[in-house]
Amino acid sequence: MPHLKEQSVEMVIFGGSGDLSILKILPALYNRFLDGQILGDSQIICLSKEEISKDALLNKIKQNCLHSNQSNTNSWKKYCQLISVITLDATIEDSNWASLNKLLSHKNIIRVFYLATPPSIYVAIAEQLAHQKLLNNNTRLVLEKPIGNDLQSAKLINQKVGNVFKEEQIYRIDHYLGKESVQNLLVLRFANAIFEPLWRTPHIDSVQITVAETLGVEGRVDYYHQAGALRDMVQNHLLQLLCLTAMEAPLSLDAKDIRNEKVKVLNCLKIIDRNNVTEKTVRGQYSAGAINGKAVKGYQEELGHGFSFSDTETFVTIKAELDNWRWSGVPFYLRTGKRMAQRYSEIVIQFAHIPHSIFSEDSGTVEANRLIIRLQPDEGVKVSMMIKEPGAGGLRLKSVPLNLTYADTFDNNYSNAYERLLMDVIRGNSTLFMHRDEVEVAWTWIDGILKAWEDKNIKPKKYPAGCNGPIDSDLLLDRDARQWHNNLV
Amino acid sequence: MPHLKEQSVEMVIFGGSGDLSILKILPALYNRFLDGQILGDSQIICLSKEEISKDALLNKIKQNCLHSNQSNTNSWKKYCQLISVITLDATIEDSNWASLNKLLSHKNIIRVFYLATPPSIYVAIAEQLAHQKLLNNNTRLVLEKPIGNDLQSAKLINQKVGNVFKEEQIYRIDHYLGKESVQNLLVLRFANAIFEPLWRTPHIDSVQITVAETLGVEGRVDYYHQAGALRDMVQNHLLQLLCLTAMEAPLSLDAKDIRNEKVKVLNCLKIIDRNNVTEKTVRGQYSAGAINGKAVKGYQEELGHGFSFSDTETFVTIKAELDNWRWSGVPFYLRTGKRMAQRYSEIVIQFAHIPHSIFSEDSGTVEANRLIIRLQPDEGVKVSMMIKEPGAGGLRLKSVPLNLTYADTFDNNYSNAYERLLMDVIRGNSTLFMHRDEVEVAWTWIDGILKAWEDKNIKPKKYPAGCNGPIDSDLLLDRDARQWHNNLV
Repeated sequence: MPHLKEQSVEMVIFGGSGDLSILKILPALYNRFLDGQILGDSQIICLSKEEISKDALLNKIKQNCLHSNQSNTNSWKKYCQLISVITLDATIEDSNWASLNKLLSHKNIIRVFYLATPPSIYVAIAEQLAHQKLLNNNTRLVLEKPIGNDLQSAKLINQKVGNVFKEEQIYRIDHYLGKESVQNLLVLRFANAIFEPLWRTPHIDSVQITVAETLGVEGRVDYYHQAGALRDMVQNHLLQLLCLTAMEAPLSLDAKDIRNEKVKVLNCLKIIDRNNVTEKTVRGQYSAGAINGKAVKGYQEELGHGFSFSDTETFVTIKAELDNWRWSGVPFYLRTGKRMAQRYSEIVIQFAHIPHSIFSEDSGTVEANRLIIRLQPDEGVKVSMMIKEPGAGGLRLKSVPLNLTYADTFDNNYSNAYERLLMDVIRGNSTLFMHRDEVEVAWTWIDGILKAWEDKNIKPKKYPAGCNGPIDSDLLLDRDARQWHNNLV
Repeated sequence: MPHLKEQSVEMVIFGGSGDLSILKILPALYNRFLDGQILGDSQIICLSKEEISKDALLNKIKQNCLHSNQSNTNSWKKYCQLISVITLDATIEDSNWASLNKLLSHKNIIRVFYLATPPSIYVAIAEQLAHQKLLNNNTRLVLEKPIGNDLQSAKLINQKVGNVFKEEQIYRIDHYLGKESVQNLLVLRFANAIFEPLWRTPHIDSVQITVAETLGVEGRVDYYHQAGALRDMVQNHLLQLLCLTAMEAPLSLDAKDIRNEKVKVLNCLKIIDRNNVTEKTVRGQYSAGAINGKAVKGYQEELGHGFSFSDTETFVTIKAELDNWRWSGVPFYLRTGKRMAQRYSEIVIQFAHIPHSIFSEDSGTVEANRLIIRLQPDEGVKVSMMIKEPGAGGLRLKSVPLNLTYADTFDNNYSNAYERLLMDVIRGNSTLFMHRDEVEVAWTWIDGILKAWEDKNIKPKKYPAGCNGPIDSDLLLDRDARQWHNNLV
């Protein structure tokens, strides 16, 4: 492993006592600290609107950092020493801004402001940061998705935050892009000469991108009710995966070059409007059902009495098409939903059928090749290939998977997405983050679908929790003589 | 497994008490008998020039048929009942032809004459078979390689044997073609749409075909002294592997269609003559050395005192080139030898390098993809791919093999090559056998090399037993900025 020279960091987390901070950010920083990538003279400052003691916060994160068989090690104690907690309403002229200011060094070391807050207060925080004179030359700002709720709100955030921070200082995080298998997609495509010639029409028949959750809306009712699956998942995660799958070879891995290629992809997404929205999209909403044999409520019941009847979609299927030379005639089927049968995310590259079979019918069916990039629950790459089944009894064909599961192949635990992305922020590598342009172009396309749904008064179809969404999603592919890839193994 | 309706067979083996019969043919038939593919009313008649009792013969094959943990099972006893032994000089008007005639049924069941004898008596045997009126409508003739010693002798055999047998009755066996991985090459190429678009210039950089033995000339001194590696191995095994690797997609798997494509390949082999033989070929002969830490004699010493100084090559490297659209500029490096470092046979498809790297130097080297088809000692298929090494410490590239080893993937033992090919003969499927045309076109090319060696007085370079042949073989590739793939794992 080439050893990068790490630098000390001041990490300031807004929403520092929230779920994201406790479940993801602080444990990720701990793991990087263990590996020596977060240096011992760094600072981690958690800002919380509600008062919380440092001990209470540490108690919350402890179980996410330490494995059951570990006790209070020296490393853990040292990590705790890096952490401070400040109570602060970051949107206003709070007196505790001074406490923060005092904690921060006045050298030009790397200073990261991580906004693990609702996007509605991004602008207010950014403006306070400027007002409180907390920006040094090495300041970076991390924004969690979603950036806004539509094109207009996203533009507003980008513009106002952009008044304080230069675009290259802003890291719009999408943790899907930090997954090993997503990064590996770039390596597969561009470090293997055997894929690029096939990576286009007519060698690829179609692409499927599925992000299936078994969870329901859980504690995010307020947000989710306003957002829905299209805004919550497709606008960012699924379109980002589509971009990395579909983009042309970038000039380099520099953020700018990658961004350019991703924006080009987004720009050639065929517009979905009132004329084709019925055939190109499926909206769904889960009703009561069962997940892993356990009965669960429907979405409407989960919302509770504070809400009237909801038309929010918890599931969406989209047939996306790209109007460019490479992908003409190759549909990208996007699918995401809550309360589905299994939790898994994957990109399926479905290659074309062989044009002509030289094998007799007795040999069995020649199945078209598939490349499956799994993102969760396990990460891995699988190529299905036809081989001859061994034996002297005639020639029989068999499809077998060539497998590369990270967990099997590599001894050490691979880092999770947040660890990777946090280190990228600290190191100033924005390749795996979203540029303002991408966010806005993606919203343009998404807004078109939202408007078309509204124009045509398209309501979500109910699907029982624990299935693969409404039957309409299967019918959409069936009309194209295709099927969803639902099997995990 | 689709169940083929098997038919009874009368298998007549000339040279029935010889090595090939005892080590390969009779054990192979036993295994097929165990699987019910050789029916219980079949006959296996072993003809031997030297007198040998049936018990003595059974004793010889027993250890090759039964595993150590098996005793005299019922199956073995039943198999022994199928076998008869007749002493017969098959080249002459021997009185025991009548015994054979008596044993054979006078129905039109499948009758196979397997000539496990030197090719010098193929014609005499064929003519005797006709003379003794032993041919029925279902007669098939199996000929072992080599067919002759040069184009002229091969033509003579083909023509004279052809006076007795129709071409479609003649099965010229090359046991390499019966190997699972060789057959799998056809499946890989033509049942997977992902390979064919890459299977050509410029996506393939070069192909290597290596058949490396650790054995010396052993008991075959008389034959080998006259033949040498070019005739013994390249003319048949290596050129057949080249054909299956390089041929266009055949119309079907019918013998005729495959033969047509193979002959097309052989016909476009660039001629090697006195003008280019020095740069295109390397001849070698092993001297004393060590194999697996055990000292072994050189070829000259092995020949013994009955021979004068020998210029026979025990090693050969050839840069073969195909003058056609698909393979223009893609060399096929052929290499075979005795007393080499390791026993292994493989076809290496070396894909081209990526045209442009988007990865930084810190990420490591991007290695070109390789598809390796292993024939022995283990059979398997391996694709080397570049992936991202997991971890948060920057992007590091790593070449990993996607493996398909038959022994790992499939529970049951796969059949050996002879089992496969014998069943093909019985079933009348000549897809994996050599047509007269192939043999003759191959000899034409080989004769050109032999003549060029003679014209230019090219003598074999010595190489110590236990290495990868003379250094000149490495230099030949080095001049093309390439290297042999020598690692097994």
